[in-house]
Amino acid sequence: MESNNIAATAGKTIRCKAAICRSPGQPLLIEEIEVNPPKAWEVRIRIICTSLCHSDVTFWNMNPGPVSNFPRIFGHEAAGVVESVGEYVEEVKEGEFVLPVFAPSCGECRDCKSSKSNNCSKFKVGAGEFGMPRDGTSRFRDMKGETLHHFLGVSSFTEYTVVDVANVVKLSLQIPLDKACLLSCGISTGVGAAWKAADVEEGSTVAIFGLGTVGLAVAEGARLRGASKIIGVDLNPEKFEIGKKFGLTEFVNPSTCGEKPVNQVIKEMTDGGADCCFECIGLASLMTEAFRSSRQGWGKTVILGVEMHGSPVSFNPFEMLEGRSVAGALIGGLKPKSDIHTLAKKYLDKELNLEEFITHELSFKDINKAFDLLLEGKSLRCIIWMDK
Amino acid sequence: MESNNIAATAGKTIRCKAAICRSPGQPLLIEEIEVNPPKAWEVRIRIICTSLCHSDVTFWNMNPGPVSNFPRIFGHEAAGVVESVGEYVEEVKEGEFVLPVFAPSCGECRDCKSSKSNNCSKFKVGAGEFGMPRDGTSRFRDMKGETLHHFLGVSSFTEYTVVDVANVVKLSLQIPLDKACLLSCGISTGVGAAWKAADVEEGSTVAIFGLGTVGLAVAEGARLRGASKIIGVDLNPEKFEIGKKFGLTEFVNPSTCGEKPVNQVIKEMTDGGADCCFECIGLASLMTEAFRSSRQGWGKTVILGVEMHGSPVSFNPFEMLEGRSVAGALIGGLKPKSDIHTLAKKYLDKELNLEEFITHELSFKDINKAFDLLLEGKSLRCIIWMDK
Repeated sequence: MESNNIAATAGKTIRCKAAICRSPGQPLLIEEIEVNPPKAWEVRIRIICTSLCHSDVTFWNMNPGPVSNFPRIFGHEAAGVVESVGEYVEEVKEGEFVLPVFAPSCGECRDCKSSKSNNCSKFKVGAGEFGMPRDGTSRFRDMKGETLHHFLGVSSFTEYTVVDVANVVKLSLQIPLDKACLLSCGISTGVGAAWKAADVEEGSTVAIFGLGTVGLAVAEGARLRGASKIIGVDLNPEKFEIGKKFGLTEFVNPSTCGEKPVNQVIKEMTDGGADCCFECIGLASLMTEAFRSSRQGWGKTVILGVEMHGSPVSFNPFEMLEGRSVAGALIGGLKPKSDIHTLAKKYLDKELNLEEFITHELSFKDINKAFDLLLEGKSLRCIIWMDK
Repeated sequence: MESNNIAATAGKTIRCKAAICRSPGQPLLIEEIEVNPPKAWEVRIRIICTSLCHSDVTFWNMNPGPVSNFPRIFGHEAAGVVESVGEYVEEVKEGEFVLPVFAPSCGECRDCKSSKSNNCSKFKVGAGEFGMPRDGTSRFRDMKGETLHHFLGVSSFTEYTVVDVANVVKLSLQIPLDKACLLSCGISTGVGAAWKAADVEEGSTVAIFGLGTVGLAVAEGARLRGASKIIGVDLNPEKFEIGKKFGLTEFVNPSTCGEKPVNQVIKEMTDGGADCCFECIGLASLMTEAFRSSRQGWGKTVILGVEMHGSPVSFNPFEMLEGRSVAGALIGGLKPKSDIHTLAKKYLDKELNLEEFITHELSFKDINKAFDLLLEGKSLRCIIWMDK
């Protein structure tokens, strides 16, 4: 099989800049690194823009352990252009615009072939994977020769990255890359949860726990489905005004509910409980509260947040017998290789609101400011431009 | 509105025999009691046969509390004939064969009008309801004038009972009453769970935790749906042979699995986990194990058992994010007033196996033997004939 690589850098190690995290919670250091050429089934991507998601912050803050290791290159929301491809890669070629995505699709396994699953069983989504999915090795090293760990199969806080073709989505529509970037994780997770995992129906009631980007994207997805009432739950009262841009119709601030549990407040607002509840933070106690806020008979609770303390989530089984259900979903239950295209089309058709999620833009050298903005609750998505 | 009652007893108090439980765990006493005439929206039924379900035993054993009270008339699986009806009852009339069912349907509320719920929001399924659903009073008293409490809106261990019309299913097909009796709770719960709550697909794999009547009825429902592998999990090894009559293809005895957790055994038998898992006992730990036995991507766990210690059930939220879901259902998610008809038809069409569930028959005076047989694990369903 002949290679169709044409970039001058194809087949060679590339020197470029990357933002390296050398120890938990410490500012990233922009350093020169070496990026190996892609091996078989791999794609080397020049990142054009990337954005910061809460999961980056979670792992950035985490002490070394089974899913945490340093030095590491974070970042998993990005858009870029294919620089070169390894052997056997036919799905994309040099010069094409792509999104690297953390959720892989081998296209061959039972899950990839089924319409019911988006959880590839050949390649796992693994924060504990520190290298490439097929051989476990890293394509990154610093100028002292030290290996730099990958993150979620993407590692986009670098001018060049290498990802498996299973983690690449080709952009076949002419969508601005900063908007496309948002579709590689957070927005797709929220909108997908409303459309796929929960299948929100017209006229239904929705309660969203946690109004970060994912929660607001759930609201946007529910708005597009014609939900009659979209209730946001957040400790930050400013989120109501922000949420209205994405269809939020009501707001509950747990800190002002007094003795009344949030589920009781929501039951009163929805005549017995919301049809669909979404947990978008990653707290077991909030998952339980979301479940309790759902309506008997058909109430669905969808868990999107990654539980941040590794705690089990508990439910009252009697409340389950009353006809409530709980499901979890990664990237909202979407199949990235096909469904991101649908979302991009909805954006181009001026149905899906992506602009309002972009609250800040920075140049790569200022990447640490993106962490500050997110931690202070000031940003939704901050686009980090690699060449600015 | 004119009454169309024609029985000589209509409008009068009836004296008849009932099996009374006067204190928890004690043998029932067959005594003469008085049964009041039905009030508005109520139906007085002459019970022809009844059977014993595990829920009777659970509440029979329970010390007085919010859902337990004595003296009480147990029994909630039965078939009978309408003796008389109260004002406004048009759905059934004197002389018609009916099933009293614990799961009410008012026919008017959002739940009853929705195809998605079988959990009537006007009348709750309540073991804590000690009288009739509309006015809370009892229609039973003993010969000393003491009130006898109702059970689950049915109380069938008596020659005559009074139930709300919301708890009555008219038998429109010519089905033998002992077979029909089984459809009023246990079998409908199991078959319904396979058909409605889990929607078992042809060729799928199923794991059933607990092979009592409900669990075996799940197997029967899965068999009729064409499941390729139906795995039963039970501590009693004799259940495998019994289960084969209802489609069971494999058996796991947790006591012989050694160090290996049951979920691991089932994952190995099903190439990663069963498509549908069912908990049919009512133990939180078993619900967790059922969930862990379900496949990533689309695995569904359906909880049918009523948790016997009031414990919360807990799940690993990461396993949920992998695409697993959990739901609960009363009476398998069936709508009794319409779906029991479908099951009766399947029986008459010789598709649904009901005969094999009837392992014993007794006359009413020997009702305590039915408790012994069930407690010793010797019976599935024991039909208790009132007139024998």
